[in-house]
Order: sequence, then C-alpha cells, then structure tokens
Amino acid sequence: MTTSEYRVTGMTCGHCEMSVREEVGRIDGVEHIEVSARTGRLTVTAPQRVDDGAVLAAVDEAGYTAVPVG
Amino acid sequence: MTTSEYRVTGMTCGHCEMSVREEVGRIDGVEHIEVSARTGRLTVTAPQRVDDGAVLAAVDEAGYTAVPVG
Repeated sequence: MTTSEYRVTGMTCGHCEMSVREEVGRIDGVEHIEVSARTGRLTVTAPQRVDDGAVLAAVDEAGYTAVPVG
Repeated sequence: MTTSEYRVTGMTCGHCEMSVREEVGRIDGVEHIEVSARTGRLTVTAPQRVDDGAVLAAVDEAGYTAVPVG
C-alpha cells in the first residue's frame, strides 16, 4: 500500500472536499482518501502508487487544482 | 408576488449556495430564490410573503445561519 500526497487549491468547505473525494474515488485501485479544505492536503492510498496524472485530472474535474507534494 | 431578504453567514462557495437553494426551495409557494455566498444575500420570492421562520429553519437545515433583513 502506498500513499501519495497532493496540495489542492480552491477548496473552501466540506462540500468541496466531497467533490474531490468523489472524483478521486473513481480512480482504479484507490482504497483510501483524506482531503481537507482547511489545509489543502489530499492523500490518496492505493496498493500500487497511483498515477499522479489521474489524480490531478480528477481534482480538475471536481473544479480545483492539485500539485503533487514531495 | 413578494420578495423577502435575508443575510446568511457561513456560505463559502457554490456548493453552499446549492445547499441553501435546495432547502429553501422546499418551502411551499417559493417561486424564485437568489443566493450568493460572496455577499451572503438570500432573496426568496413567493406569491404571498414567505414565513420568515420557515426560511430560517431551511437555511439552518442546510447548515448555515440566516437573519431577516429590513
């Protein structure tokens, strides 16, 4: 199991978090998501390292912008 | 047709506006709603003046706080 971390800008509330969670949750293999509008932190856990491009596209689909961290 | 105005606190984004719109839209007789997270302004239009208590309860149900204006 590996966890990838991203910084997301533009989220302001719990609804925003839910939108990100919904879109990222559609990526194959994703087993756990943590997302916080307050910190802008998104972590995605999957058996194999998730494709960054897929995560960034999913966040974009939700209406926000993400960049990989670390 | 009469329009009632309220000040809503706590909305931060379009999702918040949608939540308020959804709950207030359930009130009998409501025909038009304008709501802005940016200004915090909510206006509710109905054939007869809408009951303030019903609007405040609907906004509360959405997770925010409203007070009548004017």
